[in-house]
Amino acid sequence: MIYRTHNLGELRKENIGQTVTLSGWVDTTRDFGGLTFVDLRDREGKTQVVFDVDVAPKEVIETAQKLKNETVIRVVGKVKERSSKNLNIPTGEIEVFAAELTVLNNCDVLPFQITGTEDNLNENIRLKYRYLDIRRPKMLNNLRMRHKMIMAIRNYMDEQGFIDVDTPLLNKSTPEGARDFLVPCRINPGTFYALPQSPQLFKQLLMIGGVEKYFQIAKCFRDEDLRADRQFEFTQLDVEMSFVEMEDVMNTIEGLAKSVFTTITGEKVDYKFPIMPYAEAMSRFGSDKPDVRFGVELKDLTDIARNCGFKAFKSVVEAGGIVKAIVVPNAFEKFSRKVLGEYEEYAKRYFGAKGMAYIKIAEDGTITSPIAKFFSEDEMKEIIAKTEANNGDVVLIIADKAKVVYGALGGMRLRIGKELNLINNDEFKFLWVVDFPMFTYDEDEQRYKAEHHPFTSIKAEDMDAFLGGQTENIRTNTYDMVLNGFEIGGGSIRIFNPEIQTKVFDRLGLSYEEAREKFGFFVDAFKYGAPPHGGLAFGIDRWLMVMLKENSIREVIPFPKTNKGQCLMSEAPNFVDKEQLDELYLKTTYEEDKKTEEN
Amino acid sequence: MIYRTHNLGELRKENIGQTVTLSGWVDTTRDFGGLTFVDLRDREGKTQVVFDVDVAPKEVIETAQKLKNETVIRVVGKVKERSSKNLNIPTGEIEVFAAELTVLNNCDVLPFQITGTEDNLNENIRLKYRYLDIRRPKMLNNLRMRHKMIMAIRNYMDEQGFIDVDTPLLNKSTPEGARDFLVPCRINPGTFYALPQSPQLFKQLLMIGGVEKYFQIAKCFRDEDLRADRQFEFTQLDVEMSFVEMEDVMNTIEGLAKSVFTTITGEKVDYKFPIMPYAEAMSRFGSDKPDVRFGVELKDLTDIARNCGFKAFKSVVEAGGIVKAIVVPNAFEKFSRKVLGEYEEYAKRYFGAKGMAYIKIAEDGTITSPIAKFFSEDEMKEIIAKTEANNGDVVLIIADKAKVVYGALGGMRLRIGKELNLINNDEFKFLWVVDFPMFTYDEDEQRYKAEHHPFTSIKAEDMDAFLGGQTENIRTNTYDMVLNGFEIGGGSIRIFNPEIQTKVFDRLGLSYEEAREKFGFFVDAFKYGAPPHGGLAFGIDRWLMVMLKENSIREVIPFPKTNKGQCLMSEAPNFVDKEQLDELYLKTTYEEDKKTEEN
Repeated sequence: MIYRTHNLGELRKENIGQTVTLSGWVDTTRDFGGLTFVDLRDREGKTQVVFDVDVAPKEVIETAQKLKNETVIRVVGKVKERSSKNLNIPTGEIEVFAAELTVLNNCDVLPFQITGTEDNLNENIRLKYRYLDIRRPKMLNNLRMRHKMIMAIRNYMDEQGFIDVDTPLLNKSTPEGARDFLVPCRINPGTFYALPQSPQLFKQLLMIGGVEKYFQIAKCFRDEDLRADRQFEFTQLDVEMSFVEMEDVMNTIEGLAKSVFTTITGEKVDYKFPIMPYAEAMSRFGSDKPDVRFGVELKDLTDIARNCGFKAFKSVVEAGGIVKAIVVPNAFEKFSRKVLGEYEEYAKRYFGAKGMAYIKIAEDGTITSPIAKFFSEDEMKEIIAKTEANNGDVVLIIADKAKVVYGALGGMRLRIGKELNLINNDEFKFLWVVDFPMFTYDEDEQRYKAEHHPFTSIKAEDMDAFLGGQTENIRTNTYDMVLNGFEIGGGSIRIFNPEIQTKVFDRLGLSYEEAREKFGFFVDAFKYGAPPHGGLAFGIDRWLMVMLKENSIREVIPFPKTNKGQCLMSEAPNFVDKEQLDELYLKTTYEEDKKTEEN
Repeated sequence: MIYRTHNLGELRKENIGQTVTLSGWVDTTRDFGGLTFVDLRDREGKTQVVFDVDVAPKEVIETAQKLKNETVIRVVGKVKERSSKNLNIPTGEIEVFAAELTVLNNCDVLPFQITGTEDNLNENIRLKYRYLDIRRPKMLNNLRMRHKMIMAIRNYMDEQGFIDVDTPLLNKSTPEGARDFLVPCRINPGTFYALPQSPQLFKQLLMIGGVEKYFQIAKCFRDEDLRADRQFEFTQLDVEMSFVEMEDVMNTIEGLAKSVFTTITGEKVDYKFPIMPYAEAMSRFGSDKPDVRFGVELKDLTDIARNCGFKAFKSVVEAGGIVKAIVVPNAFEKFSRKVLGEYEEYAKRYFGAKGMAYIKIAEDGTITSPIAKFFSEDEMKEIIAKTEANNGDVVLIIADKAKVVYGALGGMRLRIGKELNLINNDEFKFLWVVDFPMFTYDEDEQRYKAEHHPFTSIKAEDMDAFLGGQTENIRTNTYDMVLNGFEIGGGSIRIFNPEIQTKVFDRLGLSYEEAREKFGFFVDAFKYGAPPHGGLAFGIDRWLMVMLKENSIREVIPFPKTNKGQCLMSEAPNFVDKEQLDELYLKTTYEEDKKTEEN
């Protein structure tokens, strides 16, 4: 059977007079003026099909009159010019008068309507019937955009001389990083594979192997408790290059980001991405992934606080903390005591701030502030001058350890941006954040850890300081790409010299032997002529989500899981037969343990 | 640091006089006539670098003289014309006189030499040091070919309007098909995900979802005991289309196969692939994936056997068996009693044949055959006429159930092709094998099973017979692509009508409820307007292996595992910490069970 001569987005005035065969889903039907109209839908669009008793046999008309939505049909008919044209759709100037009709498949009562229900569907129902959800033009478009994005990435990488190398999914479990997903290995009983958290080791090995320019669109897995908008499995663009400095990687990937952006949005990015050091990003925006589409930058009051008479501020500074403020523009009216209380609560709950101070400036310049009494008039003027606040603004101040201040003010800044509509949602702003610190002090474990990973190279400018024993504020050759406040990707130039690597391990409290134990053969591989190299990884799901202005990665993942890790459609994960576990020499102890806990 | 201005396959006579910066691995070094020559190698090729005391400082010369193979260096120097040109390599007309030399990284004593050791390396050593193995130009080329193949596939599919949709790797375990790899799910204790054996259900759901043309290059997993040249994880091109008949799928994919073939081999395929029904392939070649690069076809002696006086043949035919022969050309001398014995043994051991008869025809026409005495001279003439054997040939005959005859003669035919050098190894012959049977009788379970899978559609020509109750010889809309005797891909048009599907389940002894139990939500999905659809899957690894004329898929997989499922490089799989298992509420019982078994 020939199912179609044309798709349903294709017919135009030029086709008038032709006899065509069309197949698709009944989108809507209506009877009008003795005729039956069917909007027939396929992947490419809709075409109006008309059933007219003067054209088609009686049986066809009768069948057509009874067609239900989402029935799959095939029609043969003649293209005619429409009398009442619909110029909103590309096929709106024509209609097809059906002579033949075949019902290819029926459709039961649907759990939800496909057309005209864009925004009010329950997500769980959508996920359960994902195969119907993706019939909706918006979801189909998201799938198509994902495809186009992957194609654009691949073609760009290929043109730049990168080789796609697929690395294994059944790997060795390592104690580093997040929790591994394990896969019991039946033929080697008692042993396990681990699903990859990233192809990090493999891509560096490929550089040692002389591949020089590698990329892969890789599935990665992390068994972490799912916060909002995380998935156990995610898709990553993974890149590594040899004989490069960080500028080489950044230039290559900036070109990629622009190309992909144009593919998805149709818009050009005609500027070079600004490059902002990590320290500046933290200081100005309280974030290492600042949304630079709006201001409300952090203002530093530490110097004023150090010399002021307000003990609460002064003691924070003396203990090594900082005092910073943000200015909420024209918020004098909006920021009632209730709203201010909510912001303080937010700073306390999510960032561990001990409190929040504020200064409200009325339109006439009158100041209301619980901390006003601790400052002289001049000091208050100095504070307001430093924050650049105007009449009608509200100043919010946090004094605490730097980490708390940045976290709280950075978070409040974003909340203000959204709640006060300071963000132009039509705008996309790219940014590089670079030079992240090598080491961060882990308060819980009372030791230094690698901020990125222990293979990250130290900036040449800071190498002497590092070799001289300094650990704080040692900067690395790292770069994150930020789009509208989302980190969409990041990476680093790696250490390729085994001696420097040993020194970094040493600073992390690892002897060579312990490192060998931890990272295994990977440490050995560097002895055999490793070239200088670096790379990065991009999270495909989030990157696409931001470009499509979606609110959740689940909107751009074909078959996502819930935040309990469940596929509502297939009902994975599930219990398995005892025989399956027996073959793996495994026993699940959950019921047992639960009983023990209950007793 | 600028590491390179040119790669090492790039410089030509046109570059003479330029100052260039090069980086790469020391491939070989030699001192000659007071000069030190270094062949410097990178991904793109080799360039000869000369260290001359008249050009470079003394320290550079001294360092150069001590360079070991696989050291990573950077040189700056001037391109000069070579006096003795090497026209075997593209850069052979020039050499670079180094003025600067930086040793970027040293290289320890290697487990094997990178250059000049193409064919005599131990595979286990190669796999353990895969990162060195892929520095070898041949392996690097295989990786590059894999990349080019994937790019060619994707670009072709994209041009044809297919959308790449990535389906999940954490799925539900189903009792159908091969054994699943399980992944314990920590946050839903006691439950498991399964890694996909193929995206079969998802791709059909995508058709129900209106994607119409889907493809994916998917990782698939089967926990089967590893025979030679299988891997637990493999890469599959997965395709599905809606509103198509089998010719549509075959034409699309034939175009793909030709395009990919040209990408990899540089050769064009200028013929339409022959289409051979399954029944013909079995009857002529004893195989559903015949290597048609040579003859030695099966000849049917069943009719002769039915009426002959040789009881052994006659009784086989009367019991429903068949008698077939192959002719080994010019084998009168070669096929001694010993060789014939080996062939008979092969037919018995691997295919369960009860015996093999033979007829040797000397150059003068004299016949030697243990079965000659059972036939009249005329009968023997008839047999020889039917087999088209000539003087000097040897006829091998098997009488048995069809399955045994096809297996044994098909296998012997391939062995003969190889051992007698009847195959032109420079030739590639594509073929479609179509119309596989719907049901096969499982002797062990005494019931019919689906040959392909229960969603395969029945040929329109055989539908009446099926509906009328016939089960044997019901043909399906199936197609396998065969290249040089390897099945590189295959698929089918699916059943999309729930009523026909129910009838097929019924014939397989499954009620709708049982099918619902087995295939879950998938059966329900067809109620909501499933379009007619079909597709296929190609094994990337084997397909590439055949085109590159490699003997093992491990040569075309970047990081393969051994046939014990082990990665010799990373030492996966491994034992994991008890804490990891505790978190999953799992206990491994291997040691326990072993003890029990020992006692």
